[in-house]
Amino acid sequence: DWRSKTGSEIVQFVVVKWTMACLIGICTGLVAFAVNISVENISGLKLLSTLTFLESDRYLAAALVLGGGNLLLVLLSVSLCAFVAPEAAGSGIPEVKAYLNGIDAPNILSPKTLFVKVLGSIGAVSGGLYLGKEAPLLHSGACIASFLTQGGSKRFKLTWKWLRILRHDRLRRDLITCGAAAGIAVAFRAPVGGVIFALEEMASWWRSALLWRVLFTTACVTVVRQAANNLCQGDNCGVFGYGGLIVFDMSVVSTNMGLIALVPAMLLGILGGVLGSLFTFLSRKIAKFYSGWHSKHESLGKVLQALFVSIITSIFIFGLPWLATCTPCPSTASCPSSLPSGAYKRFTCASGYYNDLAGLMLSTNDGAIRILFNNNSNNEFQYFSLVLYLVWAFALALITYGLAIPSGLFLPVILVGATYGRLTGKFLKSHMGFENIDEGLFAYMGAASFLGGSMRIAVSLCVILLELTNNLLMLPWTMLILLISKTVGDLFNVGVYDQIVFIKGFPFLEEKPEPYMKHLTAGDVCSCPAATLSAIERVGNIVEVLRMTDHNGFPVLEMTSAPYPTLHGLILRSHLLVLLQKKDLFSQNASSLIGQDLKSCKVDFYKRGSGKGPTIDDIQLTAQEEDMFLDLHPFTNISPYTISEDMSLAKAFSLFRQLGLRHLCVVPKTKGPFPVSGILTRHDFMPEYVLGLFPHLKVSKWRRL
Amino acid sequence: DWRSKTGSEIVQFVVVKWTMACLIGICTGLVAFAVNISVENISGLKLLSTLTFLESDRYLAAALVLGGGNLLLVLLSVSLCAFVAPEAAGSGIPEVKAYLNGIDAPNILSPKTLFVKVLGSIGAVSGGLYLGKEAPLLHSGACIASFLTQGGSKRFKLTWKWLRILRHDRLRRDLITCGAAAGIAVAFRAPVGGVIFALEEMASWWRSALLWRVLFTTACVTVVRQAANNLCQGDNCGVFGYGGLIVFDMSVVSTNMGLIALVPAMLLGILGGVLGSLFTFLSRKIAKFYSGWHSKHESLGKVLQALFVSIITSIFIFGLPWLATCTPCPSTASCPSSLPSGAYKRFTCASGYYNDLAGLMLSTNDGAIRILFNNNSNNEFQYFSLVLYLVWAFALALITYGLAIPSGLFLPVILVGATYGRLTGKFLKSHMGFENIDEGLFAYMGAASFLGGSMRIAVSLCVILLELTNNLLMLPWTMLILLISKTVGDLFNVGVYDQIVFIKGFPFLEEKPEPYMKHLTAGDVCSCPAATLSAIERVGNIVEVLRMTDHNGFPVLEMTSAPYPTLHGLILRSHLLVLLQKKDLFSQNASSLIGQDLKSCKVDFYKRGSGKGPTIDDIQLTAQEEDMFLDLHPFTNISPYTISEDMSLAKAFSLFRQLGLRHLCVVPKTKGPFPVSGILTRHDFMPEYVLGLFPHLKVSKWRRL
Repeated sequence: DWRSKTGSEIVQFVVVKWTMACLIGICTGLVAFAVNISVENISGLKLLSTLTFLESDRYLAAALVLGGGNLLLVLLSVSLCAFVAPEAAGSGIPEVKAYLNGIDAPNILSPKTLFVKVLGSIGAVSGGLYLGKEAPLLHSGACIASFLTQGGSKRFKLTWKWLRILRHDRLRRDLITCGAAAGIAVAFRAPVGGVIFALEEMASWWRSALLWRVLFTTACVTVVRQAANNLCQGDNCGVFGYGGLIVFDMSVVSTNMGLIALVPAMLLGILGGVLGSLFTFLSRKIAKFYSGWHSKHESLGKVLQALFVSIITSIFIFGLPWLATCTPCPSTASCPSSLPSGAYKRFTCASGYYNDLAGLMLSTNDGAIRILFNNNSNNEFQYFSLVLYLVWAFALALITYGLAIPSGLFLPVILVGATYGRLTGKFLKSHMGFENIDEGLFAYMGAASFLGGSMRIAVSLCVILLELTNNLLMLPWTMLILLISKTVGDLFNVGVYDQIVFIKGFPFLEEKPEPYMKHLTAGDVCSCPAATLSAIERVGNIVEVLRMTDHNGFPVLEMTSAPYPTLHGLILRSHLLVLLQKKDLFSQNASSLIGQDLKSCKVDFYKRGSGKGPTIDDIQLTAQEEDMFLDLHPFTNISPYTISEDMSLAKAFSLFRQLGLRHLCVVPKTKGPFPVSGILTRHDFMPEYVLGLFPHLKVSKWRRL
Repeated sequence: DWRSKTGSEIVQFVVVKWTMACLIGICTGLVAFAVNISVENISGLKLLSTLTFLESDRYLAAALVLGGGNLLLVLLSVSLCAFVAPEAAGSGIPEVKAYLNGIDAPNILSPKTLFVKVLGSIGAVSGGLYLGKEAPLLHSGACIASFLTQGGSKRFKLTWKWLRILRHDRLRRDLITCGAAAGIAVAFRAPVGGVIFALEEMASWWRSALLWRVLFTTACVTVVRQAANNLCQGDNCGVFGYGGLIVFDMSVVSTNMGLIALVPAMLLGILGGVLGSLFTFLSRKIAKFYSGWHSKHESLGKVLQALFVSIITSIFIFGLPWLATCTPCPSTASCPSSLPSGAYKRFTCASGYYNDLAGLMLSTNDGAIRILFNNNSNNEFQYFSLVLYLVWAFALALITYGLAIPSGLFLPVILVGATYGRLTGKFLKSHMGFENIDEGLFAYMGAASFLGGSMRIAVSLCVILLELTNNLLMLPWTMLILLISKTVGDLFNVGVYDQIVFIKGFPFLEEKPEPYMKHLTAGDVCSCPAATLSAIERVGNIVEVLRMTDHNGFPVLEMTSAPYPTLHGLILRSHLLVLLQKKDLFSQNASSLIGQDLKSCKVDFYKRGSGKGPTIDDIQLTAQEEDMFLDLHPFTNISPYTISEDMSLAKAFSLFRQLGLRHLCVVPKTKGPFPVSGILTRHDFMPEYVLGLFPHLKVSKWRRL
């Protein structure tokens, strides 16, 4: 509690807060390093042996190594996810976003989830599935932050007094924002981009002070990343692990295309918006189908589904390049090459020729992006190969994203966008007379457009792409394309992350009230009448109320004042549960409690960091105890925010959302026998609930723009 | 009003909103271009003639041209500022920040201010004063936004219906944020940095949607800037105007200094923090002295003061280089050069030698920064020259900043920081064995440290510096230095902008309540009892209340319900003034008004964009009219936010600040004869006011960290 803070406690607070911010950065950096090294080495080994078999024309062995390896890795990943921590499935961004909006879904940030997320991500990415490791890193960062801010653990006797300070809701939320930013910062080598992503897309409440602390965390991540990179220079980290996280250096590309290139750039933006919203729409359908399948077939269904997708992926990876024709090698490069990275893979071609589709298919996803973004590599690809790859990538991204494995969407989206961008660039260059454009640059612009069109993030994507490609001159182009693609996409539907928040049923509070809320009053929707308690209440009644309702906040009424009771304050379920366990507070006689000074009585109300707290069923009371009385006065929040029942719902929403409340007492306009007419909680503001009560409001299709 | 919006009105709103955002960007870009061209040409001509006279050893003529030219330009600038628009003095950042916090100071965004700001800034910068044009550009951007969002002008018959939509407080605030961002974006060639600066430093309320619109504005600015640059290629814009705003391209500098360079970088950060807070402290003293002088001697005092500083500046610009010794020219460069830019100025030296101090002194401020940041120019400066320049720059920055002219602080701060950074780099390189460091890079790091130490902005400065120098590899260094210097500076005092907000006496609402507010209740500080009106009130009484008080919000009481009146709602002074002018609403008989339906009566309450509205003294009523009655029911906000008088002041503050309220009704805990115990306004939350009432709370030195 802040009221009793002394100077030294404030010093403790500051020290712990900043140490934690730094620790979160360091740990996230190390985890990212481990993930990256593992993925690079595992998939590198797999690809190398496949390519070696191919070199010696042993196609069946190559296919078996590739497909079998993929299947095993995916099996590991999906088993962990299905049987150990189902919360680790998916990208994790919607979950963290919901947490930062104030939704305490169970286990989404638990250590178990972290463990599965990291291992599952390694398995899925190195298993060749069409997904990325970036969003899982964000989720891992948030999990690390949550783990570090548990405020000690009773089980492991880590209950140092300083750590207790961490058990403060807002501080935890801030540090989890830091963790999320650290994840993005390390995944994209974008410290500033990570900060802005966390604030634009993740956090529901912004403060300048938070900006500042998040920057500190990403600075720590950057230092760790730099040190890891230095460590891995010169093959110290296994055969293929250079320790570098994805970086697509485009700092040498010429952006001097002339103003005429604005037209194709804008068209690319529109295309990105349309395709992005199509992708979002289809991914919603597929997510619904998958979740039906998951609830019908449970864990085994999840495993089989993932294995099925893995087999399909392997078949296409190995099968599609057969359809491509061989291209003569350019004279400048070492071509064909037998390295696992690089575009010039021989596959089944004769010496001096390369298979362009095999270059994309038989690479890691990071590698494929590097190949597509590559500058000064015009005409490296044939139309047929690019179209085939585009269709394959789009379809596979859709069917992979809903699987019960840790899966990031950034990489597949970038790949799809880069492919159609490169197609556009190639077409413009060879058929439309745009001489001085670079196909690699257009691949980049295509990626930006599809990112904007599907994720609907603007400023942070700008900064991330800027830091990723290390070329400031592309910034105006990137801004233009992102603006157009986001605007076009927003015309059709919401972004892919918001959609998942909706599908998962999180009661997410948007920033603004819905327009129809203007026409309703708080009294129209509140849970009325609320279950109330007296300030001096029989223990049995408290137990009864807790058992019969699932509310988390109860108005406390003062019965003494005539003629009607008045509202004394609000008490939380969690506090009542703690009080019921402290049986020495009970008293035989209600009247003996009146006027008694209980301020000195300290009760430890600290909330546990994660996991479920005790429930009412955990509390055993004798009949005698139930007949005793409990004085709630000292434990009640005596000035809860209240609103009048005739306040418009939109205004009530603003109050509730801006102040981050969990309960809002609705009081009657005129004095009556009940001082509280009801309570508003998060669920009372959900559009589905409100529109269920008042279906005639559903007419307006226009969202507030 | 939003409640009555139809689909087509929403389309109007969206179209107008985005068009305005783009227009603001374009206009700001054009103004910046004009300012830049003028400054470059005027000061270029001035410097060129000075240098020509110097070449032919006509020192007196050179001094007269330089000093006389400066004096004339400064006279123009300060006269405009002193006699036409005193609000245009200073940087404008604190004023815009205060406006965005909800403070309507008169004239700070008026067209007159814009005019004086632009012309004054040109005069002051090209007049050789030691200040920058960046912050004035921000203020100009905000003024342009304010001007464009007037919602039409009755005088010029521009009252198109679509423009009326703009007369909405929050929309205006959002667009002014866009204008501020556009100013920074164009000044520093930093579109993303501008967005983040606006959000980190300027805006008091953030929304993701705002981020997105601000980015659109800065994208428009970037396009204009790019077009202007293209236009000016090849001497089209006068002799010296290349149309380029300040850009310090450092993209080729090697940042590979090894981890050992962390130590001097951290020391530089600490030094920046200490010097920055010293600068802030001294600038406060000087601002106080100046404001005393200004109030004593009025406009003429301002003019004389500025002329005095101009003469001192000219004397030192011309005098100091005589103290420096001549340095032999390096063989690689064209040296000495007679161009107005560049480091190698001959001054009084023999052929083959250059005067290093003259290079810094006889340049524009932009040019001096380019010289200091220059890479691969080690040992260009001598210790003595750098120390002399540092002392001069620090002192002159202090005495120039408080003058009554448009003055930006970015440039002088960067120059001071770059000078001590270069000194440090030179020392490390020649005496400490740091072989592979670059003096230019250290100048940059010094500038970052002094910026962080004096302005206490972190994330946006990072991005601005990143975009300004076009080198991503310096990002980790920049982050580290800014973090350290801001932290060190915050130990001593607040940043330089916050300090000016305080000195100017703006009732600025901080983000968090002060700690002592926990110990007070709302009832302790509110203006009690509030002046109230009846729902059906005699016109004379309304006039009386308006004349006797200077409140802006009045609780409206419903007298009919027995036994005590109830709170009907809140009405604003501005609305009452409009109603008093509509005499057809008056009625002879109070009882005839009861139950009357006035909902259909539309009154135009739109607030004028800027300038003062009508006051109570403008309203002339006959005695007969004063005896009539007015029904306030339809014009009252019937659900104002209310709090109980025993709510802690800290909670009341959060409600007030987060929701951006102007009035907060305080109601008594128990029903009494008065349904409202008072009203809380912005002034009731000001620390000076609260601590004046409760001086014993002043003990705690600790600010909430």
